[in-house]
Amino acid sequence: MRALVYTNNSLSFEQNHPNPAPIEGEALIRVLQAGICNTDLEIVRGYMDFQGILGHEFVGIVEEIYGHQAQERYGHLIGRRIVGEINAACHRPDCPACQNNMLTHCPNRTTLGIVKRNGAFADYLTLPVENLHPVPDNITDEEAVFVEPLAANFEILEQVYIHPTDRAIILGDGKMGQLAAQVLALTGCEVTMLGKHEEKLALAARHGISTLLLKAMVETQFIAPTSRVDLVVECTGSPQGLELAMRLVRPRADKSTVHLVSIVIDEIRIQGSRCGPFAPALRALSTLRVDVRPLISARYTFDNAIEAFEFASKSGVLKVLVRL
Amino acid sequence: MRALVYTNNSLSFEQNHPNPAPIEGEALIRVLQAGICNTDLEIVRGYMDFQGILGHEFVGIVEEIYGHQAQERYGHLIGRRIVGEINAACHRPDCPACQNNMLTHCPNRTTLGIVKRNGAFADYLTLPVENLHPVPDNITDEEAVFVEPLAANFEILEQVYIHPTDRAIILGDGKMGQLAAQVLALTGCEVTMLGKHEEKLALAARHGISTLLLKAMVETQFIAPTSRVDLVVECTGSPQGLELAMRLVRPRADKSTVHLVSIVIDEIRIQGSRCGPFAPALRALSTLRVDVRPLISARYTFDNAIEAFEFASKSGVLKVLVRL
Repeated sequence: MRALVYTNNSLSFEQNHPNPAPIEGEALIRVLQAGICNTDLEIVRGYMDFQGILGHEFVGIVEEIYGHQAQERYGHLIGRRIVGEINAACHRPDCPACQNNMLTHCPNRTTLGIVKRNGAFADYLTLPVENLHPVPDNITDEEAVFVEPLAANFEILEQVYIHPTDRAIILGDGKMGQLAAQVLALTGCEVTMLGKHEEKLALAARHGISTLLLKAMVETQFIAPTSRVDLVVECTGSPQGLELAMRLVRPRADKSTVHLVSIVIDEIRIQGSRCGPFAPALRALSTLRVDVRPLISARYTFDNAIEAFEFASKSGVLKVLVRL
Repeated sequence: MRALVYTNNSLSFEQNHPNPAPIEGEALIRVLQAGICNTDLEIVRGYMDFQGILGHEFVGIVEEIYGHQAQERYGHLIGRRIVGEINAACHRPDCPACQNNMLTHCPNRTTLGIVKRNGAFADYLTLPVENLHPVPDNITDEEAVFVEPLAANFEILEQVYIHPTDRAIILGDGKMGQLAAQVLALTGCEVTMLGKHEEKLALAARHGISTLLLKAMVETQFIAPTSRVDLVVECTGSPQGLELAMRLVRPRADKSTVHLVSIVIDEIRIQGSRCGPFAPALRALSTLRVDVRPLISARYTFDNAIEAFEFASKSGVLKVLVRL
């Protein structure tokens, strides 16, 4: 099969990569489309020490299911269009994470295209059957590729209670910032996006999100302390981003510094968020409560996947999709 | 001015009712449209012992503001289209509710068209200036009338942390049930509406809400205990509704009875909700995240207000609007 492989610090497109061999409880999935995530770009820069086929945002068709029990429970998925959660937990009886049903935190997990499991930039991939979610007919293939990153943003609402009267700031106007802004706005809260790209801020503004153009991060020095908000979502990925986030978030005590000690002084809570629930993301796309279509910057055929990665790494580019 | 007045157990349309006399800190508002709420219908049946001009769901234009301080702070509202929060608190220094900023719970409060304050079915009404919210241009008059009941439904999200992975049931397919279903669905959670009217359930289904037609409440006996959910919103207003809600909500302990004692046994929380925040409701209407237009059953001119009330009290009727 065709596959986009990262090995020995180099990305290569292979025409004759061996097909994956599913084990019991797994499905063989034919990939229809896959998306390039910043994580993929980071891996190509050496992040995670991953070697193998890249890609974890995808939509595909279930071709086969392996194992009698899996066939019995999930046989109805054969031939269906699906998206898949990317973490495969160990499910061992001696694994505390799995026994506590924290499957995305299993220390022995493999992760599609990220940790010890070949990914979605290939004609076929495998995933445990319980990871799969059928895609409603009114969600296009292109939209379905966004389910995984969109689910990660619903995880924010899963972990933090956001009130309709809260004020929130999204730091960053990139792919994740755009999804975070749309998801947070659903709660009814007042959302402001701080970013450096006029055209990307305009995308958020379509959804009733206030925007603030920063030519340089130093300009945020002038943000009045009275504008401090209940929640800041850091979507820049930069160390300056975190520092700025802490300066913008409302303290429990009325005191602010730009140093890490302010976590204690201001009684700030920093909440990490990674993988999220697929069902709410599918519901949001199916009802058009979230619109991901304007976030697509480019579409490539699989044979031009290397070129797609080069384009995706350029500044100002949002989501790049690859059709298999 | 014209006014729809409820006195001595009788509803009458007056052509020459005295104009309201605003006091310092209040605005004189010319009413454009008003909506008939179930509370209005209940008042006409004797609820709240209210005597005076009915109506609390409205959109209007600020004509004048009384008092120097109010003019200085809110003068920009003159000539603007506004909606208004309906509770006028006493703000006395010895009022514990007001001192704790729980203005909607002030024991000395007056409430537009409900408690000791003439309401919106009149050419003019008065409200404290701090109760007013400008209406964005892209919200029509008809939509703006829904801000007050929509805000009451955002109060659910203000009081209860609903996770995107939660399952919720709305009991009832009437006006409030429809708004509650749309608001809850925004959180990403799985919403099911139980109701008795096929055409009203169809309205909710447009928003990705699952529906279940009950010919009679007795049919809910057959709802499997495994379907119990994280949250039930009781929008039928009937005693049977509350009992059913308790039977449908997931217990903390795995035990259920249909009696009130199950609140203790199942460790159920019953949360009341009345008046809510206007800003999230305005944001939701302005961005079309909530669509109230299909909930309008009929439109009347003010001179036919009595007829409008008669129609609104018929079974199966949703929102009835009156244009002044």
